[in-house]
Amino acid sequence: MKPSIPKGTRDFSPAEMARRNYIFDTIRSVFRLYGFAPIETPATENLCTLMGKYGEEGDKLLFKILNSGDCLRGVDRELLDNPEGQMGRLAAQLCEKGLRYDLTVPFARFVVMHRNELQMPFKRYQIQPVWRADRPQKGRYREFYQCDADVVGSDSLLNEVELLQMIDDVFARLGIRIAIKLNNRKVLAGIATLIGEPDKIIDITVAIDKLEKIGLDAVKAELLERGLSADAVAALEPLLLIDGSVDERLARLADLLADVEEGAKGVAELREIVDGVNALGLRAELDLDVSLARGLNYYTGAIIEVKALDVSIGSITGGGRYDNLTGVFGMPGLSGVGISFGADRIYDVLNQLNLYSADLLTGVKVLFLNMGGAEAAMAMSVVKEMRLAGIATEVYPDCCKMKKQMTYADALKIPYVAIIGESELAEGKLTLKNMLTGEQQLVTAEQAIEILK
Amino acid sequence: MKPSIPKGTRDFSPAEMARRNYIFDTIRSVFRLYGFAPIETPATENLCTLMGKYGEEGDKLLFKILNSGDCLRGVDRELLDNPEGQMGRLAAQLCEKGLRYDLTVPFARFVVMHRNELQMPFKRYQIQPVWRADRPQKGRYREFYQCDADVVGSDSLLNEVELLQMIDDVFARLGIRIAIKLNNRKVLAGIATLIGEPDKIIDITVAIDKLEKIGLDAVKAELLERGLSADAVAALEPLLLIDGSVDERLARLADLLADVEEGAKGVAELREIVDGVNALGLRAELDLDVSLARGLNYYTGAIIEVKALDVSIGSITGGGRYDNLTGVFGMPGLSGVGISFGADRIYDVLNQLNLYSADLLTGVKVLFLNMGGAEAAMAMSVVKEMRLAGIATEVYPDCCKMKKQMTYADALKIPYVAIIGESELAEGKLTLKNMLTGEQQLVTAEQAIEILK
Repeated sequence: MKPSIPKGTRDFSPAEMARRNYIFDTIRSVFRLYGFAPIETPATENLCTLMGKYGEEGDKLLFKILNSGDCLRGVDRELLDNPEGQMGRLAAQLCEKGLRYDLTVPFARFVVMHRNELQMPFKRYQIQPVWRADRPQKGRYREFYQCDADVVGSDSLLNEVELLQMIDDVFARLGIRIAIKLNNRKVLAGIATLIGEPDKIIDITVAIDKLEKIGLDAVKAELLERGLSADAVAALEPLLLIDGSVDERLARLADLLADVEEGAKGVAELREIVDGVNALGLRAELDLDVSLARGLNYYTGAIIEVKALDVSIGSITGGGRYDNLTGVFGMPGLSGVGISFGADRIYDVLNQLNLYSADLLTGVKVLFLNMGGAEAAMAMSVVKEMRLAGIATEVYPDCCKMKKQMTYADALKIPYVAIIGESELAEGKLTLKNMLTGEQQLVTAEQAIEILK
Repeated sequence: MKPSIPKGTRDFSPAEMARRNYIFDTIRSVFRLYGFAPIETPATENLCTLMGKYGEEGDKLLFKILNSGDCLRGVDRELLDNPEGQMGRLAAQLCEKGLRYDLTVPFARFVVMHRNELQMPFKRYQIQPVWRADRPQKGRYREFYQCDADVVGSDSLLNEVELLQMIDDVFARLGIRIAIKLNNRKVLAGIATLIGEPDKIIDITVAIDKLEKIGLDAVKAELLERGLSADAVAALEPLLLIDGSVDERLARLADLLADVEEGAKGVAELREIVDGVNALGLRAELDLDVSLARGLNYYTGAIIEVKALDVSIGSITGGGRYDNLTGVFGMPGLSGVGISFGADRIYDVLNQLNLYSADLLTGVKVLFLNMGGAEAAMAMSVVKEMRLAGIATEVYPDCCKMKKQMTYADALKIPYVAIIGESELAEGKLTLKNMLTGEQQLVTAEQAIEILK
């Protein structure tokens, strides 16, 4: 048989791992610097935890795990005989567990289950894979990592300011130039009220979220299709076309929404967040975008999205505030705000821009060649000293032709090779060869450690 | 609804994560020190990659993922109507993917798929979770981490020596006293031949693997049950009862197996490995145990098992040499040898022995209290400087009672609290309070950085 892996999944080689770990380490170090603490949740969740949280489409994209043992027990016979159009119901009877779809719902579940052990506000980060049965395509995988940081139990907009600083720090460290787009769900709700369609906020957000992708005319057509009146669509248009600097647009929005309480509150929140980050200085471009909704209906306040300026790949980080997330698990009134870094897209951006430093792959510092017999025995004992000194050291396991062993060192880009042959054994020394310069010198183990440290 | 997680799985809190990361970091740093490079494979594998690799029992313990969309398409109608006793077949038709069961089979699959990119010998490590539908019990989970290091493409016993040194290093760093048990599959095969039951090697190994657990008499009874002759069982007994030092036992085994070629080779291999590690010095107890088989039929040479001396919890690390693992994927003749650290059991051992250092939890170094207004604005700007200096710093997001904020710092064991109130604001300084000693001093931001660095 010729082995393969499930479509939409990937193996990661040592070279790819080095690049990925560089991304994870960078994000993790910023999370820690800002006082976020790590948690992990299981890969599998009960389906009742996951179902209904990601919309109808999301439910279909959940990977479901077949119940062990007699999986047909308790399944409606009728459903088995006529499953057409009822696959979701059938799956729910065959499966009680699924793979997590994101890190936010498991986090909400975690907070509710551990509410008595947690000190509020609770600042957690979580870096784990998620799984979605999406159609795989360029930049979209069925298994991919999310890197989330959330604060729950605090209404303060200072959290939004800090999350924006974290985004700024992460991408500055990675060397990726970004634009951060900001919006506020309350502004969207205010707009819906202003144009006389307060119940249509979801239709409005879903449609205008596509503004950049499909253009104003298509959005207007979609809004009419979704049942908005022509007057409402006409009233909406100037709001979508507000331009000028961030300050100018905030002022204009404040004017337009002055009489809609929720909308005015949203503008005030945006103003506080923008002023907060500007006072501290942000390297990223900060942009206001009233068409930004991120299609996620659980956001209730700030909505954040990050795009790379130099690569066209869609959103590489997103987030926002949600006031009701733990409510579905029986714990209402807890406000949360968070961001999620899309590690796999960031990986693609870094690859395209070739922003990795050259020394990323350096693992092993020195390879000891294997000459067999007493020479190999001496090598093993020097290797032990090297490692005690903290130097990553490899010894070629087989006593084979020197050329083959040198080829191995070359292929793995190991910077030094150590040789203990007959004469070195007699002298109690080793020949250390710099693979880059070709220079070699006869040294004691102690001297070699000094050089390699 | 009251949320829960699937049985046999766990959430990990920040405190638990700190302990677990300490274990993973320790193992990872030893892997790297010895020249192993990381890879990762997907959580899901095609079921055809997994099935038949772990015995009949293992197949039943695989978590299988329901096919997306119309999962009943192509399922035998007859099978749906009469599934009794054919659950395995039914599952295979409902599912084409499963969660990985260990890291060894995915690694073999990886090596075969990437054979043209890999430099042999290939030394890889892999630290990822695995999933088994085992009945959960104390110390046994349905999701748990394995930490594997393997070398493929080298027959040299020097690899076994290095793997034993790595085991020794990891547990020395963790402070866990261990005994390493060694055996060799060729010795087991030699014994089977010697007692006239060469075809019964699997029955013999499965039975004598239980020697320590169920005792000699029960093992003898099981062997008879498994169809061994009474003569064979009698001939086996003295082999199981060999005692004395490792050297004495090796000498005795060499005598007994002198005329059985495979057995003699196994003893010679054991001798070379034991001499190799002894020449370099091992802190762990090294023990020879001809009853050690680890129930894994893919081992062909050395078999390794590690037990903690001070906690009774079963094997905490295991491994061995396998010559045929990639053969099932169409790549014969590649020898491999590896070890697997059981991170979850090691975690339990460390917890029981309380071997964690006290400073493990230290995350955030200083909490800035939030006094609101201009004071909070100044705090945010000093916090930014702190972070630029690499100091993990938190600012309390809400402007609430000071007592509440101090309680937060206490609960999270944050060692310093910084206060910027009216007078500090006026002076452009901050009050830094040592939470352990209660001592507080008025300092500039630069001085605070010096103290906290």
